[in-house]
Amino acid sequence: MPESPGPTDAVPATGVDLHLVLPPAGPRRAAVAAALRDAVRTGRLAPGTRLPAYRALAADLGVARNTVADAYAELVAEGWLTARQGSGTRVAERVAARTRPQRGTRQPTTPPVHNLRQGQPDASSFPRTAWATAARRAISAAPNDAFGPGDPRGRPELRTALAGYLARVRGVRCTPDEIVVCAGVAHALRLLLSGGVPAGPVAVEAYGLPFHRGIFAAAGVRTIPLGLDGHGTATDELTTRRAAGVRRVLLTPAHQFPTGGPLHATRRAAAVDWARQRDGLVIEDDYDGEFRYDREPVGAVQGLDPDHVVYLGSVSKSLSPAVRLGWMVLPPHLVDSVLAAKGEREAWTGVTDQLTLAEFIDSGGYDRHVRRMRQRYRRRRNQLVRVLADHAPHITATGIAAGLHAVLSLPPGSEAAALEAAAQRGIALDVLAGFRHPDAEVPHHDGLVVGYATPPEHRYEAALEALVRSLPPA
Amino acid sequence: MPESPGPTDAVPATGVDLHLVLPPAGPRRAAVAAALRDAVRTGRLAPGTRLPAYRALAADLGVARNTVADAYAELVAEGWLTARQGSGTRVAERVAARTRPQRGTRQPTTPPVHNLRQGQPDASSFPRTAWATAARRAISAAPNDAFGPGDPRGRPELRTALAGYLARVRGVRCTPDEIVVCAGVAHALRLLLSGGVPAGPVAVEAYGLPFHRGIFAAAGVRTIPLGLDGHGTATDELTTRRAAGVRRVLLTPAHQFPTGGPLHATRRAAAVDWARQRDGLVIEDDYDGEFRYDREPVGAVQGLDPDHVVYLGSVSKSLSPAVRLGWMVLPPHLVDSVLAAKGEREAWTGVTDQLTLAEFIDSGGYDRHVRRMRQRYRRRRNQLVRVLADHAPHITATGIAAGLHAVLSLPPGSEAAALEAAAQRGIALDVLAGFRHPDAEVPHHDGLVVGYATPPEHRYEAALEALVRSLPPA
Repeated sequence: MPESPGPTDAVPATGVDLHLVLPPAGPRRAAVAAALRDAVRTGRLAPGTRLPAYRALAADLGVARNTVADAYAELVAEGWLTARQGSGTRVAERVAARTRPQRGTRQPTTPPVHNLRQGQPDASSFPRTAWATAARRAISAAPNDAFGPGDPRGRPELRTALAGYLARVRGVRCTPDEIVVCAGVAHALRLLLSGGVPAGPVAVEAYGLPFHRGIFAAAGVRTIPLGLDGHGTATDELTTRRAAGVRRVLLTPAHQFPTGGPLHATRRAAAVDWARQRDGLVIEDDYDGEFRYDREPVGAVQGLDPDHVVYLGSVSKSLSPAVRLGWMVLPPHLVDSVLAAKGEREAWTGVTDQLTLAEFIDSGGYDRHVRRMRQRYRRRRNQLVRVLADHAPHITATGIAAGLHAVLSLPPGSEAAALEAAAQRGIALDVLAGFRHPDAEVPHHDGLVVGYATPPEHRYEAALEALVRSLPPA
Repeated sequence: MPESPGPTDAVPATGVDLHLVLPPAGPRRAAVAAALRDAVRTGRLAPGTRLPAYRALAADLGVARNTVADAYAELVAEGWLTARQGSGTRVAERVAARTRPQRGTRQPTTPPVHNLRQGQPDASSFPRTAWATAARRAISAAPNDAFGPGDPRGRPELRTALAGYLARVRGVRCTPDEIVVCAGVAHALRLLLSGGVPAGPVAVEAYGLPFHRGIFAAAGVRTIPLGLDGHGTATDELTTRRAAGVRRVLLTPAHQFPTGGPLHATRRAAAVDWARQRDGLVIEDDYDGEFRYDREPVGAVQGLDPDHVVYLGSVSKSLSPAVRLGWMVLPPHLVDSVLAAKGEREAWTGVTDQLTLAEFIDSGGYDRHVRRMRQRYRRRRNQLVRVLADHAPHITATGIAAGLHAVLSLPPGSEAAALEAAAQRGIALDVLAGFRHPDAEVPHHDGLVVGYATPPEHRYEAALEALVRSLPPA
């Protein structure tokens, strides 16, 4: 069928004559997209203007046809262009061009070929249908007041569902009144810093998430790293002179992040005893507590002493980091101050997500999803171990009894080179050094942190293959 | 009628013998409220216990009678106490006591009989079915990467939909790249304060939302009130000596909050001219711009100069305050700094709400819902005006050409009594004094701020009836 020009089409159907200048180096697709964006922004390409065919522009620019096709698609997604069957790709109709050149157009980072960064569940496995069904049920069953100004504690339906779920699955002891819903663990930490006594420095793990430390630093709170050995974080150090002023400690007891071991029972007891004696507070980030593969789950430390432990969790690993739902289980005496810090009304967490998660938990859909993902990630972990045994037997994976990532031990001093070698094969991942506290006094072991949950299922095998090829030789 | 003690009343009707200890200095009302809260929390005051009369407790504590009355009212609003005609003020009946002393059991506020507080759309009109349908479509059509870590700018689908919608409906001029999605206007203001130049004090309107001022105050930013007259906020004062150091101004140009007039064209031009000359910034809170009843909508000031105006909006009035979705349209040079303040990944706004709103806008469902609600609120407004004309012709409603609230002008000095009279009929609403900037130099006009959108449809007539009965006589 011949393409017929639309009403705003002032140029022949063969397409507009378009001169783009690309920088001599760098990714071609991004360069084509940037040049097109500029041409639209500055008004060189007027609204409604029809763009040249992929083939023609590709020939002009000396790039592959697909490069142009991808750049067009990107600009369509961003709303700069529109693509309608039968009328080609056109500049979107919009208001008159602005006079001065645009700034502030930070582009999304180009995705790597193989994403093995830690902390992300497989985005292609989001339970779309089940979630949408739960949403429809929850929205239809909600009382009217659910759509009024929200209670900052969170919806009672969700807090009730969570209290039951966390007791059953993680050994958390609480009533729904001791749960405060929030937008994630970062939000929870900020609320605790504004609303949670006690003050002073915070003890943290020698290796941990930089965003934790960043939140403390932004609040002017000093962090003091504890030691780390085969029994996990050295919580016995909390009673030493170095930690004299410390009354809060942040731990990842179920699966130390990122090194991967569980906190030993004596160390769990030491943390709780210290908190009782010092009137201190244990902040427990249970970031991936649902994913344990080889033995019984390690219960939450919170269950040992609900009056001295704040338990933090979210759906970021179990469902998706794009669903912004987290929770804090608080000692009763902290609930009011945390709520005061949060504000008089719910200003953060959307009611439909809250109601949907409550329904998803109550209906058993959440358990089913977690079970399915646990099986999938266990399989991926086993595959990783097998591939290493077959092709890089000098490299061992540790911290693999649980979680969504493994640590590959490297020869001393080889981290940076291994990261570079991986990047050259299009692999994004992290090294242990990135998680080390600057004041940590434990010896450093070089290692790659491999997020084996991140790639979509059909790309995992290729990612592993690329990974083993990038590893240092024996 | 003699007061009869209720079934749980174990003390004489003259009231409980109550010893409260107040700190020697500081605000008295807050101290009384805190002491009462503690007494209830710790169980010193059992559920059902009747509190002393204002007079008696005031004499005991050596504070004004109104101080006690206000503290009681606050605790009633928080659900600690209940006030019933004929049985005085009592400690609320609450859930069974736990063995260990309960703390952190802030109760949800007891809803008033008639809620006429401003700023809330009718919660019973949330478009449940249409929203659930849009959610299902959006979740099913989303690319996989939508469920990975989110871009802090917000989903491209939503920013594209918003750019088109805001251009069409509000005359906003922007590309999707200049929009940053956020959790609401409060979040937007916080991001602007962290990421938006310029620094220094902020000019605000003489009457405005206390939460705006609270966010500025929490960030240590001084607010300077501008004048207000029949042409709206006196933006011409921005060039006077009083505003010498000011380079930011927060305005509600479409419908001044809460007095209700649109900003006059000369005042709009004055704000934009000032911003250009001073390299300043106009922050436009378009909080109810979609609800205009009697003439053509007033376009956004942003359209006059996208390089000097930050445009803020949300779904809080158009859909529900429980859906935490807002947007900022930023001058291009501010996009990167606001994104840096927001963080590397989306940590706040859930992806399903974002995708659902995009689908809801694109499918025309959002327009249909707004149109339906506009008709409903116009009808309610007309009914309010009619009821006043019939039953309280000495009271006039102003600021009614738009929005979800009206201001009822009262005789000088009668606000507090009118509020009290309304409360006695179970009506919750606000008075103008609550929105006045403490440094405002404009004359104060007493008035009730009536949120006529708030009640559910079937309760509106009864709310109006109760309202007119509570108004001061001619």
